[in-house]
Amino acid sequence: MSGKARVTYWAGRGRCEPLRMILAAGGVLMEHNVLTAVDGAQALRALRESGKLAYDQVPLVEIDGLNLVQGTPTAQYIAQRCALWPSTPEAQYRAGAVFAAAQDARAPLVSFPFHGDLGRLQAELSSPRGLWGRYAVKWEAMLAEQKFLAGDAPSLADVAVYEVLDFAHAACAASGSATCLPSAPSPAFDHALAAFPRLRALRAAVHELGRVKQWVEVERPEIFVSEWAAYRRSVDMTLSR
Amino acid sequence: MSGKARVTYWAGRGRCEPLRMILAAGGVLMEHNVLTAVDGAQALRALRESGKLAYDQVPLVEIDGLNLVQGTPTAQYIAQRCALWPSTPEAQYRAGAVFAAAQDARAPLVSFPFHGDLGRLQAELSSPRGLWGRYAVKWEAMLAEQKFLAGDAPSLADVAVYEVLDFAHAACAASGSATCLPSAPSPAFDHALAAFPRLRALRAAVHELGRVKQWVEVERPEIFVSEWAAYRRSVDMTLSR
Repeated sequence: MSGKARVTYWAGRGRCEPLRMILAAGGVLMEHNVLTAVDGAQALRALRESGKLAYDQVPLVEIDGLNLVQGTPTAQYIAQRCALWPSTPEAQYRAGAVFAAAQDARAPLVSFPFHGDLGRLQAELSSPRGLWGRYAVKWEAMLAEQKFLAGDAPSLADVAVYEVLDFAHAACAASGSATCLPSAPSPAFDHALAAFPRLRALRAAVHELGRVKQWVEVERPEIFVSEWAAYRRSVDMTLSR
Repeated sequence: MSGKARVTYWAGRGRCEPLRMILAAGGVLMEHNVLTAVDGAQALRALRESGKLAYDQVPLVEIDGLNLVQGTPTAQYIAQRCALWPSTPEAQYRAGAVFAAAQDARAPLVSFPFHGDLGRLQAELSSPRGLWGRYAVKWEAMLAEQKFLAGDAPSLADVAVYEVLDFAHAACAASGSATCLPSAPSPAFDHALAAFPRLRALRAAVHELGRVKQWVEVERPEIFVSEWAAYRRSVDMTLSR
């Protein structure tokens, strides 16, 4: 896939990171238009007036002359362009269903910076409806039958699951409002993931796809704010003005 | 499209009605496996044990030998089979984005039976982030440029918007926990929709697609419970056991 993508969002994961991760897995170079506590409100107002935000919301991904704004169709559009979207309707359904489940699984992670209660987050992730209690169990079982979650080749499903695990790792390694880009390991995360050896292998495989490693290890730390509280502040300051 | 679909859900709109409406618009005959207050819990347990529910949740749509369970990929799978899915990636994105927005717009309607506060619902629908304050404005503007929401032919986008309007009509015609299948007009709904003449025309056009009219006017009233409170009870009794 040729051409850069321009991504507009705050300097954290939120609702944007699955899209950034698919762009990275597809090898697409990104340019980042970061909304900040200082000038995010003004930038968002200007974007709304420009007509680029079909529903006045971010994330916005500008690519191929299009202004993509809703998470799921944006993810799918990028995946199609990057050979991360299966070819048959049945496999497309499977990829889409895992992607949707990954978005459900990460909802408590999206909320985490706004309450900062690590005990609450851990309980949500471990509950029978949470990442470890429901979704990881289902995905691990799917991987017993096939190499990747929607068949023999990687798809946006695998990237979305990688991203949830990445987010969970960062949150588990956090203490309260501490750093959201941990360099240290998280024993709690490692313990939870140890029950899912196939997911652990999938995580290692996706890390090597396209530009994922480059994004996660090199580029992202240069762009993301380091504190959960700073991320929260940038969102709150943007949306309250 | 040949073959019947078997749909498992409670006897109300909830998270299932967009799927039923796409099946109807595509002319697909439906068979209904209705979860009730009496035996819904047992039926759900049996379904979970059968392995048909990939994430232990309903709605479930059984079609073509597949067990489809996540809303968005299920809607898209059905739309593809029924010529309600555009052919280019750009138009597919547009259809998917409207579908996603329609799901956002109907979130307050999905909650309504569980709180029954009509004043709260009306306020949510009219807010700058709600159906009338945000989404209808955007869709009306899109229809100034093209006949249907994702181009010149009807797609799942149009069906999804029709469904939100149908849901809003039913809720606006309700008083508290009264009937969820109003036969009388709703002045409040008519007043709100009057500001969007193109959406009103779209609604009339989708009503004539496939089996939509048959579903809405004939079949659905035979299946749905008539009271919001009865719907709520069936869901609560199923999930609490």
